[in-house]
Amino acid sequence: MLWLKNYRKELLAGDIGAGIIVALMLVPQGMAYALVAGLPPVTGLYASLLPAVAYAIFGSSMVQSVGPMAITSLMVATAIGALAPSGTALYLVLSQQLALLAGLVLFLCGVLRLGFLSNFFSRPVMSGFTSGAAIVIAVGQMKPLLGFSQGWSVAAIHVPGAVVGVVSLVLLVLARYALPPLLKARGGWVADILPKLAPIVVVVGATVAVSAMGLDAMGVQTVGQIPAGLPTIGLSPSTEHWRSLLLPALVIGFMVFLASQSAAQSLAQKRNERINTNRELLGLGAANIASAATGGFVVTGSISRSAVNYAAGANTPLASLFSAGLIAIALCVPNGWLSLIPLPAMAATIVVAVVSMIDLTTLSESWRHDRSDAATLVATTAGVLVLGVEEGVLMGVVLSFASLIWRSSNPHIAIVGRLPGTEHFRNQARYTVETLPHVLMLRIDSDLVFNNTDGVVDRIERELLARPDISHLVLVLSAVNMVDTTALLALNELNKNLRDQKRCLHLCEIKGPVMDRLKRSRLLGADLTGQVFLSAAQAYEHLSGEATA
Amino acid sequence: MLWLKNYRKELLAGDIGAGIIVALMLVPQGMAYALVAGLPPVTGLYASLLPAVAYAIFGSSMVQSVGPMAITSLMVATAIGALAPSGTALYLVLSQQLALLAGLVLFLCGVLRLGFLSNFFSRPVMSGFTSGAAIVIAVGQMKPLLGFSQGWSVAAIHVPGAVVGVVSLVLLVLARYALPPLLKARGGWVADILPKLAPIVVVVGATVAVSAMGLDAMGVQTVGQIPAGLPTIGLSPSTEHWRSLLLPALVIGFMVFLASQSAAQSLAQKRNERINTNRELLGLGAANIASAATGGFVVTGSISRSAVNYAAGANTPLASLFSAGLIAIALCVPNGWLSLIPLPAMAATIVVAVVSMIDLTTLSESWRHDRSDAATLVATTAGVLVLGVEEGVLMGVVLSFASLIWRSSNPHIAIVGRLPGTEHFRNQARYTVETLPHVLMLRIDSDLVFNNTDGVVDRIERELLARPDISHLVLVLSAVNMVDTTALLALNELNKNLRDQKRCLHLCEIKGPVMDRLKRSRLLGADLTGQVFLSAAQAYEHLSGEATA
Repeated sequence: MLWLKNYRKELLAGDIGAGIIVALMLVPQGMAYALVAGLPPVTGLYASLLPAVAYAIFGSSMVQSVGPMAITSLMVATAIGALAPSGTALYLVLSQQLALLAGLVLFLCGVLRLGFLSNFFSRPVMSGFTSGAAIVIAVGQMKPLLGFSQGWSVAAIHVPGAVVGVVSLVLLVLARYALPPLLKARGGWVADILPKLAPIVVVVGATVAVSAMGLDAMGVQTVGQIPAGLPTIGLSPSTEHWRSLLLPALVIGFMVFLASQSAAQSLAQKRNERINTNRELLGLGAANIASAATGGFVVTGSISRSAVNYAAGANTPLASLFSAGLIAIALCVPNGWLSLIPLPAMAATIVVAVVSMIDLTTLSESWRHDRSDAATLVATTAGVLVLGVEEGVLMGVVLSFASLIWRSSNPHIAIVGRLPGTEHFRNQARYTVETLPHVLMLRIDSDLVFNNTDGVVDRIERELLARPDISHLVLVLSAVNMVDTTALLALNELNKNLRDQKRCLHLCEIKGPVMDRLKRSRLLGADLTGQVFLSAAQAYEHLSGEATA
Repeated sequence: MLWLKNYRKELLAGDIGAGIIVALMLVPQGMAYALVAGLPPVTGLYASLLPAVAYAIFGSSMVQSVGPMAITSLMVATAIGALAPSGTALYLVLSQQLALLAGLVLFLCGVLRLGFLSNFFSRPVMSGFTSGAAIVIAVGQMKPLLGFSQGWSVAAIHVPGAVVGVVSLVLLVLARYALPPLLKARGGWVADILPKLAPIVVVVGATVAVSAMGLDAMGVQTVGQIPAGLPTIGLSPSTEHWRSLLLPALVIGFMVFLASQSAAQSLAQKRNERINTNRELLGLGAANIASAATGGFVVTGSISRSAVNYAAGANTPLASLFSAGLIAIALCVPNGWLSLIPLPAMAATIVVAVVSMIDLTTLSESWRHDRSDAATLVATTAGVLVLGVEEGVLMGVVLSFASLIWRSSNPHIAIVGRLPGTEHFRNQARYTVETLPHVLMLRIDSDLVFNNTDGVVDRIERELLARPDISHLVLVLSAVNMVDTTALLALNELNKNLRDQKRCLHLCEIKGPVMDRLKRSRLLGADLTGQVFLSAAQAYEHLSGEATA
């Protein structure tokens, strides 16, 4: 709460302005994402109150906007949907329990300083996951958007509902894609922020249209009764199903953290601040526990809302507290109009929000850079679509590690020689280099660890078998950052075999940390058949001198 | 079968001699390891017949001796013991099914060229596993060694049995540890081989003693009736339990391969040959299928027998075929004496064999070299002892990968400078080096991949925050063998942030394969704020020139 202690009056205007704008985003978003989670819309508003306060106390980002978010809402729906039908009291209780568990997981990770675990999720996995989840959500909103009553037959389309939905969709698409270029001329923050307020404008407009034209009487579904007043505070005592919720809570906890972290970090860089990963975990944990205790569900830092918050001039978490306060007021004043919001318009806001999350940039970037990363991305998306949300992301994580291990099992090894007239040594397949006839210099472009030791030794032995004239093998270790015990023992054996063949093993360009370890081993004791050189150039000079001598 | 086509008469003497010696080892070993597997002793002899022929056809090692082995026998006992009581017909059937499944797994891995999967097992894991399994086997043999009838109370010791066991044990220990130094003076292969024949000598001696003194009548347990004749060929049609056998078959298949591979490879190096990993898989697969079809159980290449085979002069797999032929003859001629072999003497041969497998050398080596490898080794042993054989080795594999990932998540980053008067750049914490006041040169000692990207960027940003005067950041990538998409995107962002801060990002010493990838990305397009230099020296010169200019 350093920000509160150091608060200055000059910051207030920005915080109030941003608070109002974010509240206007939060009302439709909160209700919409509650619907995605299969929960009553009001829970999305509840989830926008106390969590913001909890995050302001424990979190580290100044401009993070904590609340419901599309993907985590989808994950709530799939996790709880397996245990209880949507709309039942049990479903509601379980959604709070899930938020509680996820909050505890996050808080515990923060206390244990486990923030580094987020490293397990590569960007291709996150991108593939986000795209897959976005598609799942968008497809799920087609029914409410078109006012389908049941099934997917054309007859089930409810025409007045579909009209409201499609018109809302078209307006939102225009606001997102046609408005910004027009506003760009005006410049400043207006161009950044105005399009983000389109959802509330469209929702209000659709609500007015529905009441004015009596469309609700024609069967256009609406949000329905919103209970007046603030939520009661209290954790549901039921402990049923908590075991089944543990794995989902773990996965959702990670997703909450990753989404929030990427929002917080990109904005912190713009503000020249640093995010404390472990405090971020504490903040998000506290926010989710607070959400569970006040009738909400899983919340996270939303990248879209946080960016608006920042652009609208937020300086401190006070902006989020203003937003929460405004929503609390909206809940307490007569709010009958909220109940008239047509569901098709709501669905349209969700579809537009999630379609923009489908990330083709990372796909094309990773395709250009690294096919295996692109394959992991596509596989993660496919996993989310075919197997399910949690299963898909877990599969992506497993795949990304498998490809990491696979690649480190097949290291690049270059035969190097000296660039004429320099002290630089380069791959003889890529450069014109000088070599010595009786010396083979191999640069190993990888750590030497158990999962590539056999491959490396195999390659070395094949190169030696093919060159019976070689009497000196020089291993250039400039790219070797780690030699584990398996590799060390294999080097010992290589050294012994070379001795039997009357050949010498030399090492050069050993990194400091590697040298520290090797010094403690037998290899660098009396056993080494050759020498250790500081640089490849020294090895080259010494061995060429020996040849002429 | 190239070896058969190229067979020369000169090789015959060596093959016959080695064949006889290995047969003399195999008879007691085969029967003993059948007992370890909880199977009738004769199955160990069956497992020494056709598998040798199958391996001779499909395998690639010239001197490998395929047959029962202590550790795989223990794994058979634990896998089948969970499904049926030892001594039942079902136990026998399941042991053959397990060999069949393991054989199919191995054969399939050979066809699919999956030999590289053996890279998943680091030496500390294999060493810890072997030691743990050896302890389990030795402890399991204490009861038959001391002639225990039941329980562990002193009263349950059968004194005549214990005398036979302990005397055998003492003789075997003397033969193993006192004999070789005496024989060393004589030199040659005798010193290598004679101690290895101690088991058959002790077993024959104990058998003679038992019959002569009528100890069997006093209750010393013996091997019992050995059915005369060769086994019938045929696979048991029962398919019960095959699902429960699948995971054990997979793990045992790997252990068969790893044990065999290390034997084959060390001997091939001595013979200046190369082992074809995938043909090795085919050979072992065929051998196990053959064993399953002829009343045997899981077989593998035994490092101890293969070494004797080599030392006794074996030149080709014909030696193993001679051994198999001799054992076949022993099964067909009247062999009543086999039934009189006392179990305590048998247990003594097992204990001595497995105790020598407890591997403290690798433990001390890895302790000196790398504490985390030593911890993995000890944890694997503990896992085998506490959780079970399969569980222990799987835990070891998981641990070794976890430590690999953990280490790559925490890369070493050095601030480097120029060694005065040279073109070499070294860590400024270890060497006295020259640096430029407005330039920060960081050498990243790790691949740049998703699980360390955050850590690396974090470190870079902290170094820059602490040095506001720095206007040029040079990343020295000599140790970077891989930049994945996650890291590439992070470098893009770093570059963008540096531009905002009016700083430049330079790269140097980029490896060829890394360069190939980076060229396709935006980073090395128009976006890079600085330059790409071939070497750190060039970067240094250019940037120092800029400073003076």
